[in-house]
Amino acid sequence: MRDPTSEPLLLACDWGTTNLRAWTLDAEGRVLQARAFPLGVAQLAPGEARRRFVEEVRPALAAEGAPAILCGMIGSNLGWTAIPYAPCPAGLEDLAARLVAVEDGGPGARIAPGVRGDGFSGQGDVMRGEETQVMGWLARHPDRRMGRHLVCCPGTHAKWTLVQDGRITGFVTAMTGELFAVLSQHSVLRADAAIDDPEAFAAGLAAAGDGGALAARLFTARARVVAGGADPAGGASYLSGLLIGADAAASPGLLGCAADMPVSLIGEPRLCGLYRQALAARGTAAEIFDGADAAVAGLFALARMETAT
Amino acid sequence: MRDPTSEPLLLACDWGTTNLRAWTLDAEGRVLQARAFPLGVAQLAPGEARRRFVEEVRPALAAEGAPAILCGMIGSNLGWTAIPYAPCPAGLEDLAARLVAVEDGGPGARIAPGVRGDGFSGQGDVMRGEETQVMGWLARHPDRRMGRHLVCCPGTHAKWTLVQDGRITGFVTAMTGELFAVLSQHSVLRADAAIDDPEAFAAGLAAAGDGGALAARLFTARARVVAGGADPAGGASYLSGLLIGADAAASPGLLGCAADMPVSLIGEPRLCGLYRQALAARGTAAEIFDGADAAVAGLFALARMETAT
Repeated sequence: MRDPTSEPLLLACDWGTTNLRAWTLDAEGRVLQARAFPLGVAQLAPGEARRRFVEEVRPALAAEGAPAILCGMIGSNLGWTAIPYAPCPAGLEDLAARLVAVEDGGPGARIAPGVRGDGFSGQGDVMRGEETQVMGWLARHPDRRMGRHLVCCPGTHAKWTLVQDGRITGFVTAMTGELFAVLSQHSVLRADAAIDDPEAFAAGLAAAGDGGALAARLFTARARVVAGGADPAGGASYLSGLLIGADAAASPGLLGCAADMPVSLIGEPRLCGLYRQALAARGTAAEIFDGADAAVAGLFALARMETAT
Repeated sequence: MRDPTSEPLLLACDWGTTNLRAWTLDAEGRVLQARAFPLGVAQLAPGEARRRFVEEVRPALAAEGAPAILCGMIGSNLGWTAIPYAPCPAGLEDLAARLVAVEDGGPGARIAPGVRGDGFSGQGDVMRGEETQVMGWLARHPDRRMGRHLVCCPGTHAKWTLVQDGRITGFVTAMTGELFAVLSQHSVLRADAAIDDPEAFAAGLAAAGDGGALAARLFTARARVVAGGADPAGGASYLSGLLIGADAAASPGLLGCAADMPVSLIGEPRLCGLYRQALAARGTAAEIFDGADAAVAGLFALARMETAT
């Protein structure tokens, strides 16, 4: 698909907490080049984003002359500049209308807003980056632009999102990935092994039940070894199954979705595969859409929408 | 109560993962001296327990001549020697029959067994130390030696225990305290402040709901600050309320107990007070019994039971 002679039309960046992924796109939104940088917002000193972008990102992709569009935590107060959230319901036009331009001494960049919703029981919730992935998923699936759809972006903070007629109407965040990280690194459930034991993962899924009483369910990861003679090598897989299973069991209902409502998973394919397995164990159908593809399509759609207005 | 002229009859130790608490007792089980040592099993090198006990604990309490009785993780494979668990149902006689004597070059020591149960959904569960506290609570409440009682020992790993006619018939462990520790130290919910904000604690209790969907409920601790404008200084109190509230909501049912079944809390009085508040918010009555008093009474009862047989 790549045509090396194409002049990049757009520099698109998904600039998150831990990583920056950047692509140059041609006039049709096709990827010319892709690069990743260990330049997450968490690693940036205050005021540093602009300089790293101009000195490192643009040259690495030979994109000194292309206008840029950015999404993710780069639009937070830890990033380049704080972009106000778009309130729910938020569709592509709403997000494009709230793009904020920043000056970089060259063709400039625009940063996408995040989205703010009512969250769990009205306590409020926010996302930055996933809204652009959802818009990209919609751009690639014109048939989904009407009707009600349940989307999940798994990760450190999994975002379960309800999409109605092309707009994000509500979402909740489950800190499933972060629970896995802190428990596998810092608790009595410490587990060095990778998530590579299908039987232990399935046992964790089964132990997740309806997702309730999680503090007690989690201890079964320890008790099954100490009291039940299970192999400790499967610890990470069991813990992952337990946490993902509990997330899959409990989160759709928080958005008023029936347990059998199909789920569109957007994210890293292997992690999405674990979620799909957890949903399948509950009789729920799921499809997977690559998170990088979704970000590219969403950023391109946002740029084109703004150009059109 | 203390009579400094009494010759100690017994050296009683609750020797856990992080601390060792020791008491000398007179012939009636009254405390003559109490000492705490930062000598938790987690800090001991293999084989070190006996030497530290003989060289530090006995002299500090002037108890070189008293027989000793020990409970807690000192009876695990990380402690002095591994003592087999007593199976449920386990009462005072069952535990006393399984005391194991260890040689210390002096009057010797006996170590109490832990208890093994079916745990959550039959995956097995274990306790070491709490069984002795439960026996002490029973010793101090003769009216509880018959009937069915729900006991909770809050802590790093909260033990919810069902006691029927004086014997432990089942229990589940909720890793509530450890979740608080790892989340407040290592996650996006990092909170330096103490649990000292009653309003934030009450808000956390309210947010605990039925205890389900915990990974999503936990993120409200972040979202209420980022999206809802709550004061981050209340973060530790809110997180504590959320976790203790979820534990109080979900755990009794795992043992087949009705939500309004009264709970006897055994442990550190301030932590027990937080649990009592969480239970009261759900309409459940609770009483508090000091964990150190329970350990002393349980160790004395075990020693006396063995003497009697």
